[in-house]
Amino acid sequence: MTNSNTIVGPLLTDLYQLTMVYGYWCHNKWNMPAVFDLHFRKNPFKGEFTIFAGLAEVLNFTANFRFTDNDIAYLKEQNFFGKNPNPQFFEWLKTLDCSKVKIYALHEGSLAFPREPLLRVEGPLAIVQLMETTLLNLVNYASLMATNAARFRLAAGHDKSLLEFGLRRAQGPDGGISASRYAYLGGFDGTSNVLAGKLFSIPVKGTNAHSFISSFTGLDDLQTRHLQNSNGEKVDFVARVIEIKERLGYKTHEGELAAFIAYAISYPHNFLALVDTYDTLHSGVLNFIVVALALVDFGYRPIGVRLDSGDLAYLSKETRKRFTEHGESLPKLTIIASNDINENTLVSLQQQQHQIDAFGIGTHLVTCQAQPALGGVYKLVELSGIPRMKLSQDVAKITLPGRKKVYRIIGKQGYPLLDLMTKEQDIVPQPGKKILCRHPFKSAKRVYVTPQQVVSLQECYWDGKLVKKLPSIHESRQYVLEQLAHFRPDHLRQLNPTPYKVSLSDDLYTFFHNLWEVEAPILEIT
Amino acid sequence: MTNSNTIVGPLLTDLYQLTMVYGYWCHNKWNMPAVFDLHFRKNPFKGEFTIFAGLAEVLNFTANFRFTDNDIAYLKEQNFFGKNPNPQFFEWLKTLDCSKVKIYALHEGSLAFPREPLLRVEGPLAIVQLMETTLLNLVNYASLMATNAARFRLAAGHDKSLLEFGLRRAQGPDGGISASRYAYLGGFDGTSNVLAGKLFSIPVKGTNAHSFISSFTGLDDLQTRHLQNSNGEKVDFVARVIEIKERLGYKTHEGELAAFIAYAISYPHNFLALVDTYDTLHSGVLNFIVVALALVDFGYRPIGVRLDSGDLAYLSKETRKRFTEHGESLPKLTIIASNDINENTLVSLQQQQHQIDAFGIGTHLVTCQAQPALGGVYKLVELSGIPRMKLSQDVAKITLPGRKKVYRIIGKQGYPLLDLMTKEQDIVPQPGKKILCRHPFKSAKRVYVTPQQVVSLQECYWDGKLVKKLPSIHESRQYVLEQLAHFRPDHLRQLNPTPYKVSLSDDLYTFFHNLWEVEAPILEIT
Repeated sequence: MTNSNTIVGPLLTDLYQLTMVYGYWCHNKWNMPAVFDLHFRKNPFKGEFTIFAGLAEVLNFTANFRFTDNDIAYLKEQNFFGKNPNPQFFEWLKTLDCSKVKIYALHEGSLAFPREPLLRVEGPLAIVQLMETTLLNLVNYASLMATNAARFRLAAGHDKSLLEFGLRRAQGPDGGISASRYAYLGGFDGTSNVLAGKLFSIPVKGTNAHSFISSFTGLDDLQTRHLQNSNGEKVDFVARVIEIKERLGYKTHEGELAAFIAYAISYPHNFLALVDTYDTLHSGVLNFIVVALALVDFGYRPIGVRLDSGDLAYLSKETRKRFTEHGESLPKLTIIASNDINENTLVSLQQQQHQIDAFGIGTHLVTCQAQPALGGVYKLVELSGIPRMKLSQDVAKITLPGRKKVYRIIGKQGYPLLDLMTKEQDIVPQPGKKILCRHPFKSAKRVYVTPQQVVSLQECYWDGKLVKKLPSIHESRQYVLEQLAHFRPDHLRQLNPTPYKVSLSDDLYTFFHNLWEVEAPILEIT
Repeated sequence: MTNSNTIVGPLLTDLYQLTMVYGYWCHNKWNMPAVFDLHFRKNPFKGEFTIFAGLAEVLNFTANFRFTDNDIAYLKEQNFFGKNPNPQFFEWLKTLDCSKVKIYALHEGSLAFPREPLLRVEGPLAIVQLMETTLLNLVNYASLMATNAARFRLAAGHDKSLLEFGLRRAQGPDGGISASRYAYLGGFDGTSNVLAGKLFSIPVKGTNAHSFISSFTGLDDLQTRHLQNSNGEKVDFVARVIEIKERLGYKTHEGELAAFIAYAISYPHNFLALVDTYDTLHSGVLNFIVVALALVDFGYRPIGVRLDSGDLAYLSKETRKRFTEHGESLPKLTIIASNDINENTLVSLQQQQHQIDAFGIGTHLVTCQAQPALGGVYKLVELSGIPRMKLSQDVAKITLPGRKKVYRIIGKQGYPLLDLMTKEQDIVPQPGKKILCRHPFKSAKRVYVTPQQVVSLQECYWDGKLVKKLPSIHESRQYVLEQLAHFRPDHLRQLNPTPYKVSLSDDLYTFFHNLWEVEAPILEIT
């Protein structure tokens, strides 16, 4: 199902995972039961939320995790494992799979927050260590992209159509396909990427390009002049267009007009014109109107125009004016805008009361120009039943030890108040029962919360095999949109959003801080 | 050979390419001989050069360009082509391939500049139009990535080792593989990405991670204590380490020491330790020294350490001091640094006289954080033998019409003076013969140049089939490094680099400006 079946295997990893695993194997540690959390430390795009995505690809990778004979042959012929590695190591590598692995995850499309385990991966140390790089690769970009798309959705408003047009600027072929997939999951309406449409059943949309327009120099280029009218007769369409043009007295670029006519004859039900090749208001929009009026005469319903340069707010308003000058003669027309649109452009266009119905968004969306990487990490939290934590002089990098549960606490007004992390065997928060929620690091920051509703966020998706059906991409997209409507808007807004709290239960707080004191060495400085 | 064979086909495109081609086909224009230039308008990263890359993937795509039956079936079942598309269109689509296409290109790894055709693609209008999106996708990220890598190379200096560690933060699986490939082509020494190493014969490098270190809690965790010494006897290595540690009076983290010992026993020839898990200078470096001295006693040569947090300049200098305190007892050791390094960090580390020998670079490199997309475009420059140009109110977006040649003019001092574009049938610049070179837009900016040497930059790689062998990735990398040494440093420097001139021959200049006047409509504004 995913596009990357052929490359997403155990070799898609950092070499040190393999060399470390050889170390574990030599010291007979490989089979120790280990638990890793995959989480991030900071929301991207100066925002206060992240959309978790990539789960379908994670599970696909897990299901197919196996070194091929070819992989093993490659590893043997390199000098990765010292001078004379034990040949039994390679035999053992061949036997590895994920039949002893368990994966707990948030729903794909969940709003997620710093330090929450997006994935909890349990299994033999060597195997779950070998999965690290690939899991991070699959989750980081997918989540970043879905988050970016959701931010564009919030900036554009729910009534606008958002189309992803980024393939040509994406980071490689698969970068482009992933972008289309996760833009849709994050709330876009479709993509221009045909292959992504085919692979993931995403709506595919398109218009036309400047090269089509400029491939026509005049009306003589038109090889077909006739179009079927509403009486079913093939009538000279070009003549009708010229008649209307003369009646209106428009002086426009003839090559452009020819291109529009050609497109209308090929797509009479679907006529959408790119109007900025020569001059948007003095040629493109007028040529569109002429052809659109002729189509209406012939019984068709033209669609609209695409603006691809200039001041999009101004041009959209002027274009709309030109349309309304023709009153009832034209149906409601769509104005699509493209050309280097980013989140800030959308916000600014709103302020200028633009008249755009749909946005085609490329580079800034698919490369996540505002922040092209999510810093997800994968940290050991338990080994052989003993909780572990990563220490760091940078407090933000310290990880929460042990297996944890995450609950979303919904308040009286129906929106989420905070997420609460507990130890796995900890008290389960109950609706109507007051519970103490603590800041992970600041001991004085505590709050009592009485949940109206409690949602447990993690589910087990993999237990040696797939144990829970994944929702379709359409369902995940719907889930994203529902959550965006469900969270308090101040957590989601573009400028200075309010951080959403991720708290610890009192038990987890105490446990974490005790372990921290025990683990952190008191060094003697000489 | 490329990683993406399975997905890089004619469906990896924007829908409008297909819908336009249906328009061309309906109007019998599909077979018109067309010429497209693929070029960019602005160098990335506020720099004044770009490395052209992606050619091998372009030619691979070209060689395999064919709609499969499955592709056609998908296109038929969608409503992309209006209500009742002509079924013959699909039959015709099936027959398309690149046997009538010609591709001229710069060498992969060339330094390239704005407006120069990286590719010139000639062939039937429909086919070369259908190639647009995929070609852009394949060239844009590859070139951006190679350029970024070359910039890191310039910032680090030619005597440092540069390793790409970015897979976990790359934009998807293929994003990661492309990053490894083009980082190497752009001048890196290796990657941590095992699969990229396997696919492209790139050196693969690695160290170890915090999870390995923290999986050991003390010396009791060591299952193997013995190591072969220089006499070929298996001797208790742990005892020797403890002896040395006590002699030196170091008080360090015991779990970390155990991890280092374990790694040294597995990799006695290749001992490299990550030293920042607990405290770099008070524990990690000291533990490393202890184990390294024991290895030397046993007849091995330890490699060095990796610093992954903190003030890298300071820590590297202090680490080097600790090493030199042991004088001749230790061999020359390598200090590797990682942790969120970007081009500016490298420049700043240089200024602080760091003691780092090798850099592991991830996120900023592979996502091209400083500018995550190259704005390559693909423009029609000739149709049915008639030169075409894209007009735009933005002068920077205007394209140079017709088939062009590009020459690199080398001056007396041996470095390139400027690149000269001419019409295809124009005068060929000759060594020792003065030639007029003109600014593309400013009529008064002209310069006479007498070349010492003239290099023609384009070659035909595809003429219905591959007609020129591609260099290996190692040769292309070498070519990048040679050019970086060959260009005047002020064009390459990080801060305020001098633009490198791309000039037009007098003929091309006149031809271009005449056509511009003819094409640009003088609209009547009412």
